[in-house]
Amino acid sequence: MEQDKVLDLLNSVKNGETTPEEALLSLKLQPFEDLGYAKIDHHRGVRHGISEVIYGESKTVEQIAGIVSLMIEREQKNIMVTRLSQKKADKLKNEIDFEYDPISRIAIAQKEPEPNPHGHIIVAAAGTSDMPVSEEAAITAETLGNNVERLYDVGVAGLHRLLGNLDVLMSARVIIAVAGMEGALASVVGGLVSCPVIAVPTSVGYGANFFGLSALLSMLNSCSGNVTVVNIDNGFGAGYIASLINRIESA
Amino acid sequence: MEQDKVLDLLNSVKNGETTPEEALLSLKLQPFEDLGYAKIDHHRGVRHGISEVIYGESKTVEQIAGIVSLMIEREQKNIMVTRLSQKKADKLKNEIDFEYDPISRIAIAQKEPEPNPHGHIIVAAAGTSDMPVSEEAAITAETLGNNVERLYDVGVAGLHRLLGNLDVLMSARVIIAVAGMEGALASVVGGLVSCPVIAVPTSVGYGANFFGLSALLSMLNSCSGNVTVVNIDNGFGAGYIASLINRIESA
Amino acid sequence: MEQDKVLDLLNSVKNGETTPEEALLSLKLQPFEDLGYAKIDHHRGVRHGISEVIYGESKTVEQIAGIVSLMIEREQKNIMVTRLSQKKADKLKNEIDFEYDPISRIAIAQKEPEPNPHGHIIVAAAGTSDMPVSEEAAITAETLGNNVERLYDVGVAGLHRLLGNLDVLMSARVIIAVAGMEGALASVVGGLVSCPVIAVPTSVGYGANFFGLSALLSMLNSCSGNVTVVNIDNGFGAGYIASLINRIESA
Amino acid sequence: MEQDKVLDLLNSVKNGETTPEEALLSLKLQPFEDLGYAKIDHHRGVRHGISEVIYGESKTVEQIAGIVSLMIEREQKNIMVTRLSQKKADKLKNEIDFEYDPISRIAIAQKEPEPNPHGHIIVAAAGTSDMPVSEEAAITAETLGNNVERLYDVGVAGLHRLLGNLDVLMSARVIIAVAGMEGALASVVGGLVSCPVIAVPTSVGYGANFFGLSALLSMLNSCSGNVTVVNIDNGFGAGYIASLINRIESA
Amino acid sequence: MEQDKVLDLLNSVKNGETTPEEALLSLKLQPFEDLGYAKIDHHRGVRHGISEVIYGESKTVEQIAGIVSLMIEREQKNIMVTRLSQKKADKLKNEIDFEYDPISRIAIAQKEPEPNPHGHIIVAAAGTSDMPVSEEAAITAETLGNNVERLYDVGVAGLHRLLGNLDVLMSARVIIAVAGMEGALASVVGGLVSCPVIAVPTSVGYGANFFGLSALLSMLNSCSGNVTVVNIDNGFGAGYIASLINRIESA
Amino acid sequence: MEQDKVLDLLNSVKNGETTPEEALLSLKLQPFEDLGYAKIDHHRGVRHGISEVIYGESKTVEQIAGIVSLMIEREQKNIMVTRLSQKKADKLKNEIDFEYDPISRIAIAQKEPEPNPHGHIIVAAAGTSDMPVSEEAAITAETLGNNVERLYDVGVAGLHRLLGNLDVLMSARVIIAVAGMEGALASVVGGLVSCPVIAVPTSVGYGANFFGLSALLSMLNSCSGNVTVVNIDNGFGAGYIASLINRIESA
Amino acid sequence: MEQDKVLDLLNSVKNGETTPEEALLSLKLQPFEDLGYAKIDHHRGVRHGISEVIYGESKTVEQIAGIVSLMIEREQKNIMVTRLSQKKADKLKNEIDFEYDPISRIAIAQKEPEPNPHGHIIVAAAGTSDMPVSEEAAITAETLGNNVERLYDVGVAGLHRLLGNLDVLMSARVIIAVAGMEGALASVVGGLVSCPVIAVPTSVGYGANFFGLSALLSMLNSCSGNVTVVNIDNGFGAGYIASLINRIESA
Amino acid sequence: MEQDKVLDLLNSVKNGETTPEEALLSLKLQPFEDLGYAKIDHHRGVRHGISEVIYGESKTVEQIAGIVSLMIEREQKNIMVTRLSQKKADKLKNEIDFEYDPISRIAIAQKEPEPNPHGHIIVAAAGTSDMPVSEEAAITAETLGNNVERLYDVGVAGLHRLLGNLDVLMSARVIIAVAGMEGALASVVGGLVSCPVIAVPTSVGYGANFFGLSALLSMLNSCSGNVTVVNIDNGFGAGYIASLINRIESA
Repeated sequence: MEQDKVLDLLNSVKNGETTPEEALLSLKLQPFEDLGYAKIDHHRGVRHGISEVIYGESKTVEQIAGIVSLMIEREQKNIMVTRLSQKKADKLKNEIDFEYDPISRIAIAQKEPEPNPHGHIIVAAAGTSDMPVSEEAAITAETLGNNVERLYDVGVAGLHRLLGNLDVLMSARVIIAVAGMEGALASVVGGLVSCPVIAVPTSVGYGANFFGLSALLSMLNSCSGNVTVVNIDNGFGAGYIASLINRIESA
Repeated sequence: MEQDKVLDLLNSVKNGETTPEEALLSLKLQPFEDLGYAKIDHHRGVRHGISEVIYGESKTVEQIAGIVSLMIEREQKNIMVTRLSQKKADKLKNEIDFEYDPISRIAIAQKEPEPNPHGHIIVAAAGTSDMPVSEEAAITAETLGNNVERLYDVGVAGLHRLLGNLDVLMSARVIIAVAGMEGALASVVGGLVSCPVIAVPTSVGYGANFFGLSALLSMLNSCSGNVTVVNIDNGFGAGYIASLINRIESA
Repeated sequence: MEQDKVLDLLNSVKNGETTPEEALLSLKLQPFEDLGYAKIDHHRGVRHGISEVIYGESKTVEQIAGIVSLMIEREQKNIMVTRLSQKKADKLKNEIDFEYDPISRIAIAQKEPEPNPHGHIIVAAAGTSDMPVSEEAAITAETLGNNVERLYDVGVAGLHRLLGNLDVLMSARVIIAVAGMEGALASVVGGLVSCPVIAVPTSVGYGANFFGLSALLSMLNSCSGNVTVVNIDNGFGAGYIASLINRIESA
Repeated sequence: MEQDKVLDLLNSVKNGETTPEEALLSLKLQPFEDLGYAKIDHHRGVRHGISEVIYGESKTVEQIAGIVSLMIEREQKNIMVTRLSQKKADKLKNEIDFEYDPISRIAIAQKEPEPNPHGHIIVAAAGTSDMPVSEEAAITAETLGNNVERLYDVGVAGLHRLLGNLDVLMSARVIIAVAGMEGALASVVGGLVSCPVIAVPTSVGYGANFFGLSALLSMLNSCSGNVTVVNIDNGFGAGYIASLINRIESA
Repeated sequence: MEQDKVLDLLNSVKNGETTPEEALLSLKLQPFEDLGYAKIDHHRGVRHGISEVIYGESKTVEQIAGIVSLMIEREQKNIMVTRLSQKKADKLKNEIDFEYDPISRIAIAQKEPEPNPHGHIIVAAAGTSDMPVSEEAAITAETLGNNVERLYDVGVAGLHRLLGNLDVLMSARVIIAVAGMEGALASVVGGLVSCPVIAVPTSVGYGANFFGLSALLSMLNSCSGNVTVVNIDNGFGAGYIASLINRIESA
Repeated sequence: MEQDKVLDLLNSVKNGETTPEEALLSLKLQPFEDLGYAKIDHHRGVRHGISEVIYGESKTVEQIAGIVSLMIEREQKNIMVTRLSQKKADKLKNEIDFEYDPISRIAIAQKEPEPNPHGHIIVAAAGTSDMPVSEEAAITAETLGNNVERLYDVGVAGLHRLLGNLDVLMSARVIIAVAGMEGALASVVGGLVSCPVIAVPTSVGYGANFFGLSALLSMLNSCSGNVTVVNIDNGFGAGYIASLINRIESA
Repeated sequence: MEQDKVLDLLNSVKNGETTPEEALLSLKLQPFEDLGYAKIDHHRGVRHGISEVIYGESKTVEQIAGIVSLMIEREQKNIMVTRLSQKKADKLKNEIDFEYDPISRIAIAQKEPEPNPHGHIIVAAAGTSDMPVSEEAAITAETLGNNVERLYDVGVAGLHRLLGNLDVLMSARVIIAVAGMEGALASVVGGLVSCPVIAVPTSVGYGANFFGLSALLSMLNSCSGNVTVVNIDNGFGAGYIASLINRIESA
Repeated sequence: MEQDKVLDLLNSVKNGETTPEEALLSLKLQPFEDLGYAKIDHHRGVRHGISEVIYGESKTVEQIAGIVSLMIEREQKNIMVTRLSQKKADKLKNEIDFEYDPISRIAIAQKEPEPNPHGHIIVAAAGTSDMPVSEEAAITAETLGNNVERLYDVGVAGLHRLLGNLDVLMSARVIIAVAGMEGALASVVGGLVSCPVIAVPTSVGYGANFFGLSALLSMLNSCSGNVTVVNIDNGFGAGYIASLINRIESA
């Protein structure tokens, strides 16, 4: 039931056209959203500075173009498409105007980040092969208005590279640790800092890596108490949650 | 918001004490259940002849006694407790009156099945070791008012035992096929009949059985199109769904 | 042994040409089907309004053309080929006349559904990426004569979309719930309705999805008692079983 | 090198007893901790109001008594021992004074939580069997000074129970979602709120649950972007990270 | 339908009491076994010198006593009970007379092996820990009348122990290779001989053995073409199949 | 050490040119094969009528041509190349003369099977998609001189097709059962006959088939005691072992 | 064939009692060991200062007593029994004299380590729960004559503890890194040193640890090139291999 | 902090411009590497005769060219690129001068191995399909200055091929055993020699090989105590560790 219709119903109660008992019955049968729960989504957009995100991998260029066009029409901002291949992006360019980053495979239309004045997020990545996932996390967080600092190629096999940036690490409000192979970066970073660490296992590796399983299990079993984990290669999720944490305000 | 309160609100709209706009705001903030959705549960009980079922495995005797007592007080019928060990059942007997079956480990208080006049359910089981799960399915279906016929020890290694009961099998409205080890019974039964078959993999077996995984995968990959699957050892679920199917009426 | 031949045999017993003992020996050595069990298949076709279904993925165009031609010759109706790629369908068009749906990848020759007057089936799907599997289920059920209603893009991350269709959900005789990723849709739908729910896990997702394993395990472990599960991506099976359930008649 | 010794070294440089070059060499050879990094741990204790946490499961009563005694001697506060069985707790009582909760199996000595004035944390749990893990999370967060609200038995099979507490859910700064079986609670809660959700899969279930694997995979594959995951049954980790998030202050 | 009844039916056709058409209908509805297929089982017993084998693990002493008593009554020979614990065997002794071997956990009543004059079977085992499974295989084969030679503790880590018995190995008609851990024995034996090798993986080992998975996969992937595999710890199956092979006669 | 050289050595002992002690030392240092163990291989070839088999999948056309040419030069017969793609076979045709079967992907040069007069082998396969593996088994067995009978498309979903060939099945000395999906064929066939059954799981299927795992586990857990298993898709191995069994002679 | 017998044979050739051809035949049929390969084992004992090691877990006290007694009789030194429970050790004390360590569960009879003068081995362990495995490694290496240094409780969550011992780590010839949970210690240690690192995953942990799988996969996927891995909880193997490496001499 | 800056700081302490306490604070905040730990890397290069190795699989030709050019500029020797496809190598040739081996897929620029005079390494491989991994190991070890002997096609199915090279095997200081399928080679080689064996499982195989899992588990569970394992297909790691072991000198 649309809000207008609820209002109509209430007005008809007011006018005596409908008894309260009939109205009660009517309301009980209405679906949830019609009471206005779609507003939650709208509020979320307003508060986070991001619209509904489009997962591009399993959609056709036509479908993506259709959705994004509609969102532009509705004056939404920071419309993100993730996992968009270069090839699809090239085709999409013919229909819609957007920025595209080929490493993270993220496209952003109507980009107008709403800056977060509070703190900053660090994206630490073990190796250069982890860059697509790391950049997905970093660009997501930036699009959501956060100040992001990148620490790439700081895998634990060369611990000095990580320790050489200890002051940087300790300045963050939240850290995203991205690693494939054995995923030890998350535990080591977690042990060095006292802020929350969002660990992103990547599918980088071969053999007993089993498509990212080794890093995933490693991160879930971290001996550092401040490590929490998202899905394998889920850079977007990490960037999104890190932003939620970084935007928390003192009440 | 309790229904009484919604009615109060609507009455205050009727009386002009609350504007329709204020009422709309008020309604939008109410949680779902308060609009009466708890009734769904109640309706379900009435229609199926079964109350909320209590999973006994992870509850103390005290907890179970408390819940069942309350349900008896509220005059509910056919109160089932599943996975109740003999030991717990013995203790529970001191506090509550119920029937107990040590094989299926089901206890039933206030047993008054509401008979289903339409058809009947067959529970076919591969081996005697599958009996606890088979009986859980059979007794669940019986408690729900169904006519149940048991075909036990009809595993596919001795196909004649199954084929010797082909007429029985073909008379059912729905069949529950219970098997451990390689779980082939489900496919074979599925191929012989044209009614729906609910397959229940059991954890009976050893070695590469991996706690029921072999039967589970076997049943999910059945080449018989009418086979659908529930969790390993989930006799209750199979009996419950079979009852739902058997009680479907012509519209 | 063909039925004609059994009749011949029995007539020769009647006529004294064959002794009962000889006839017994003859019957014992006959294969099962020759006693008429092929009729079961035929009966099934007549009752369900569907012929033997052809799984197109692992067959060549030539093989499919051969089988379908033969079935057309034998005047069968509603001949379905599933998992038929667009490419194969294009080639097949040169030889046989049929309807083809590129999303579900189903081809149907001699389409003449026999309507089921009783109830209807709902196919609820979590996301747009689940459409190929959802449509496979929906079109299968429709081809079998059922009235099907589609509820797509009602994943649990936006619960209002699902709840906004609660009345629709509650009107079904059986629901097919299609979801990838974490597959939570099945449990949530199962909790909202009291009819059987056929859950179809899809391989949609990435990382720790492990080709559909996450949704599969999720659905098998559903806390809603009315959920039963078919193989990953098995839209056909779900549509077929849902039809069997929907066609059950009061006895 | 102890800090005292570094200071001695620096003083000897000041006094001309050591050349800067010799001191540089000396410093380069020193292990990290000796530069004072043990203080990080101490700082952490001061800032979070919690000492090093003792994992009780794999330690003897004697070992635990030894560690806790030492910490008490050093005047540490809120000394937590997790996964401490009732039996071990009873023995430990003879030697040390502490509070013990038999459900969460947490012992706390020198309990003096430092209240966090900002927000509050919600611990939502699907079933009563999830209580040990839920309470481990809740008591951890409380010991760390947070205001915690519990929403138990709100599993998705009875969605109204969850929706009936929607206002409570929406008031939290961070939510811990605890569930076994199919773990759908995390996705549903994640979709209803816009704060971070820490998902804790539990090993509650049987069969294809595979010791918590089903809930773990389900949560990692959540279609709600704000869900992040800790290890199976890791209530402590969830409570700890939730506290880190809840204590973030505006900069 | 019993054979007697089929004969009756045919006689009534002969006598004109039943029309051939009625008889045809009657026959079509009869289950398979009633045409005499139960004889297959009986024939099997006669030919192999072994009765139906009882898997003792999941049966109570009462159930086992009941089944064995009945079989003794029916004058069956070589009645085997496998996986019978010492404790159960002690109780069973009060009711039935049988031989019991505590290592293989096999009990045999009415033991009268029917000797196979042709060849012999070798049971080769990698380590002493594999003895329960090896003896289950060896005693099964002996009970079935075969001449069995044991080669124990010939694991590949000390290859000379195996090679020192090469002549023995090469004399067998069929070899059972029993090994846990990495299960390499099967491949090495398979490479040394040209007869069939039945490989039995055992659950002996720890860690990445994963309950016998390592030996199972190893044996399934054997580079020796004459190796075939049974379930983990399935000594009985190996002994049974080896006996079937060893008893094959020239046609 | 070549046998010639051993003979030389022994002759030099005879002639007094070498002391027995020197000869002993010499012999102890010789590798195994040099004592003549290469003959085992040769004997095997003579006895089985098959040369060393070449696994073609991971070899280049050049490598295969080289090996086969050498074997032809050495006058070997029945030289089999398995898993040879059509494309590679076409190229190979330019250099060597052989028969090629595109379904089983087997090439045979110098084909001269040595007939086995004793019995015959049955290859039973569940579906048409299992044909490549079934034919690999059948052609291997035929090349090894066996009489092979094929029973294809006898999957358990249509049991009458299998039962209709019961007399054929019961005539075999050894049966190869080939099936993908749930692999139930092996158990059902195993229960119907008393000869050894070599089960070959195939990777035919999708979803929870997990590349053949479902059929593999199903077959390993067969409730029929006469079933033994080879690797997924290993038609060659099944044909080879079946031949070894079929060629066993009465001693 | 014993060496004496080979010598006899050769002498009979020398004496003309046996023709060289007959001797050749005789030699070809002899098993390998009889040519003296049992000496390899003896040499190994002499060189490594360790006798055959007895795995105590799956052996009875009687079996162990028998084996050890025999070895003492044969004047072997450093006879190790691993995985010997305290209970078995207590019983064994009645029959044999040995040293027993209850943490590593190692018993040593006739202990006389042969010191290795060259270098030393470090056993680094992540947590106190890893001590049984670490001590198994350390005591094994010490029994083999090596100088062993222990670095316990140096898990990566508190990196300063590890870095504070960097000079110790860098002094080793080979390092054994023992860790459960996420097993990150191996990679971090591997990155800090240039000697070989033997990684031992332990089964310490819970939940997604899956009995040590997380640490195992982590270590196998180490980004440090000098890390090699043994089985879960295999402290003995690590100590043994480390000793082999440490005893390598310049040639 | 750069070393220069530390020196400046120390000079300013000497000069009295900074107090020792201020300097201490300053030092405590400095990252690790700036104290000179990068030198470790440099030392490693000098000592091992190998520069940082570049994993070519996940890098673009541009990235590889950039890194190698820089290393050449810095006068590094033996610059290895692993897993470099022929296609990438061809492109890289346009920019940089290097040797390329298409089997191992290794490129080496500025090749100047520093010979190790001590011992030699054996690379033993089971089949010809294991050559890419074997050659990766062999060429890595050779580039690191080691004397390498190859023993290819010595799989355990033809044990005489391995035993015929026993003297070669026994001459090695360290052996690399490379095998796919069931990976039994590692255990057999381990049992024949007393030096360390580095086992490399390969992904060669099909079916229940599961991408190398069978060989991996087999090797981890080796009954030979001197076997240690690296990741599936990790020839580089094996060659690198073997070199570390072979270069150990007597202290």
